[in-house]
Amino acid sequence: MPTTTESDPRWDALWTHVHLATLTLSEAQGYGEISDAAIAVRDGRIAWVGPRSALPSGARATVEHDGRGRLLTPGLVDCHTHIVYGGSRSGEFEARLNGANYEDIARAGGGIMSTVRATRAASEEALMQASLRRVRSLLAEGVTTLEIKSGYGLDLDTERKMLRVARRIGEQLPVRVRTTFLGAHALPPEFAGDADGYIDEVCDRMLPALAGEGLVDAVDAFCEKIGFSASQTERVFQAAQRHGLPVKLHAEQLSDQGGTALTARYRGLSADHLEYLSAEGIAAMAEAGTVAVLLPGAFYFLRETALPPIAALREAGVPIAVSTDCNPGTSPMTSLLLAMNMACTLFRMTPLEALAGVTRNAAAALGLGGEIGTLEVGKAADFALWEVERPGELAYGIGGNACSGVVFGGAVREIRD
Amino acid sequence: MPTTTESDPRWDALWTHVHLATLTLSEAQGYGEISDAAIAVRDGRIAWVGPRSALPSGARATVEHDGRGRLLTPGLVDCHTHIVYGGSRSGEFEARLNGANYEDIARAGGGIMSTVRATRAASEEALMQASLRRVRSLLAEGVTTLEIKSGYGLDLDTERKMLRVARRIGEQLPVRVRTTFLGAHALPPEFAGDADGYIDEVCDRMLPALAGEGLVDAVDAFCEKIGFSASQTERVFQAAQRHGLPVKLHAEQLSDQGGTALTARYRGLSADHLEYLSAEGIAAMAEAGTVAVLLPGAFYFLRETALPPIAALREAGVPIAVSTDCNPGTSPMTSLLLAMNMACTLFRMTPLEALAGVTRNAAAALGLGGEIGTLEVGKAADFALWEVERPGELAYGIGGNACSGVVFGGAVREIRD
Ligand SMILES: [Zn+2]
Ligand SMILES: [Zn+2]
Repeated sequence: MPTTTESDPRWDALWTHVHLATLTLSEAQGYGEISDAAIAVRDGRIAWVGPRSALPSGARATVEHDGRGRLLTPGLVDCHTHIVYGGSRSGEFEARLNGANYEDIARAGGGIMSTVRATRAASEEALMQASLRRVRSLLAEGVTTLEIKSGYGLDLDTERKMLRVARRIGEQLPVRVRTTFLGAHALPPEFAGDADGYIDEVCDRMLPALAGEGLVDAVDAFCEKIGFSASQTERVFQAAQRHGLPVKLHAEQLSDQGGTALTARYRGLSADHLEYLSAEGIAAMAEAGTVAVLLPGAFYFLRETALPPIAALREAGVPIAVSTDCNPGTSPMTSLLLAMNMACTLFRMTPLEALAGVTRNAAAALGLGGEIGTLEVGKAADFALWEVERPGELAYGIGGNACSGVVFGGAVREIRD
Repeated sequence: MPTTTESDPRWDALWTHVHLATLTLSEAQGYGEISDAAIAVRDGRIAWVGPRSALPSGARATVEHDGRGRLLTPGLVDCHTHIVYGGSRSGEFEARLNGANYEDIARAGGGIMSTVRATRAASEEALMQASLRRVRSLLAEGVTTLEIKSGYGLDLDTERKMLRVARRIGEQLPVRVRTTFLGAHALPPEFAGDADGYIDEVCDRMLPALAGEGLVDAVDAFCEKIGFSASQTERVFQAAQRHGLPVKLHAEQLSDQGGTALTARYRGLSADHLEYLSAEGIAAMAEAGTVAVLLPGAFYFLRETALPPIAALREAGVPIAVSTDCNPGTSPMTSLLLAMNMACTLFRMTPLEALAGVTRNAAAALGLGGEIGTLEVGKAADFALWEVERPGELAYGIGGNACSGVVFGGAVREIRD
């Protein structure tokens, strides 16, 4: 690899006439805007970034792109999804709006177990095709990194199938996929009345096998009255630790179970949902550097009224990420831009917080803070280009998509003119 | 035009292997589903529709399309938009979330008057380009008919410019556009303190000129404490009547002004918003056949809490339509599918009501009930094709777009495989 010198840079690609929002932390009070900027790529990474007027003289690149004044941001990061699943829950959605109650729906075989049954029954290929369609919807909006959880198998074979599909999505589409093993998502019928026995299965059989196959990047659980207890969650975290895997948690969504503080004790990457998060939980997160992942799509779809403690999180300096939570039961959402709008409209986050929440802070929630999420030299050259005048416009629109180009690892994925 | 006989039909196009949701009123209790159906087109209109097994023997068509089991619905109708405007209000959105109050924003020149200024300042071509981008977003979701209001000019020249752009959109894109003159949208600065004087201008100068130029299909007003009074509204309706134009009204959005009953008295096509609609208003609508147009995007964006009286409208048999209300100040929404989801999630309408609300009832809200909105012989061949298993799925997704094809007036506008 040739060494770059300021006087003779030779880049693979150079973008000029772009309006950058770098989202770098040193400019935490703003977007890090550079209005007439240039950004250069070498070997898939950002090699130079700054005002066009500061480009080194003699700067040359194999390919030069004229951004025509478009906004260029880091590629978006959707850091909490259950996007791989079988079946659909639209029938249940409709039945409920037609007046069915939860009992009726359970009797008709609805709820999360219907997704488990459909996911178990689906072939890997069918699961792949159904998931690809949803993933493409996210990618069209500038998403370049995507977390995908297992958790609708609840048995070794199906959890493996889900994680294999997640990995294959990352191979087949130009997107960076991080997998999360969520075996402790719900209690499978085979372990009815024996949650501790199922946690044994998760910790002693499923996780070792799946981690051994290289299918697991992180470990998650659903810590809730209707999920698993804090002590069961801790056993999952200990198992993760034994495999050297980072943890995260579905925490304090419906009630305060102390899951966030537990996550912080295990130096978790993130605690997610957090509608019922306590002051103690916030302090623990701040101390541990755990990211708060907020999921306004589920809040909207479930018509929740208890807001996550945004002001207190802000004040404590906890980084806040925003994600779709794409899943068939509580957030059938395949638009990260819409999650940004809901973060602003429903949670009263600012457009800057929303954008940082799907770039810098979402990267941190995946343990990829050094790799992606801002426009800084050395990071992966993942960009999204937008037909907007100002970065604040991204969170403002409802249902539109101003993304007109995506660059992934330095390679142009798609440009629309 | 050759006469068709059952024994020798000769069609321009025939679609087979489609799953129809006809939305015909005779099947008001359901979607009017025909699972293995066929639908034929001649001269831009539906020439035959029914189960494939009932196709007349010897049925022939110039072009045959295999729908591969996809759902086929009437093309969607967005019956209430302010989609032609200049400028953006994203800065105001951001300022408010950053803590600015209404006074700050007014002092900074924000609010509807900022859109009026930007719309007045924009060239017709610039207005066209900005609007086309938003319209394309709707069209990608299967919209084939679109209402567009004026109302950000508030002077003759700019209202004319807006309506000309609306007409040109219908010429340039494969979509049926209905224009609405909304001169009585807000009081322009030139008439500060003289609302009655401005209503004179609207009735005696603007409407006659614009109607004379063929730019006006219907007339609307904003009847509200912060808009125009019921008696000012009635003068606008009388002027519309003199020009033989149907009326509709922004009514009972923030308070009960009796605008809906007034609209019903003028046999209005629709009353729109209706959060504060009274029982008397509902009875008047039912009697007059006025459609209730609900706008959940504005309800969401403004974080309203008073719901429109859906149950009472249902009970009274008032047809309910759903629309985006696409506008920069209170509903920057360019997704009719999302409006359907919000109608279900926020207003608790059923997926069937949501779909009827963007097809049959939206057509009625435009006075086009005999022409579009259902799949019936003789109506325009406007179809949308969907990659879903059941019609109820259309309102279920949040932010995705399962539309994989559009047919407009019998012509294939776009098919994705
Ligand atoms: Zn989740
Ligand atoms: Zn409106």
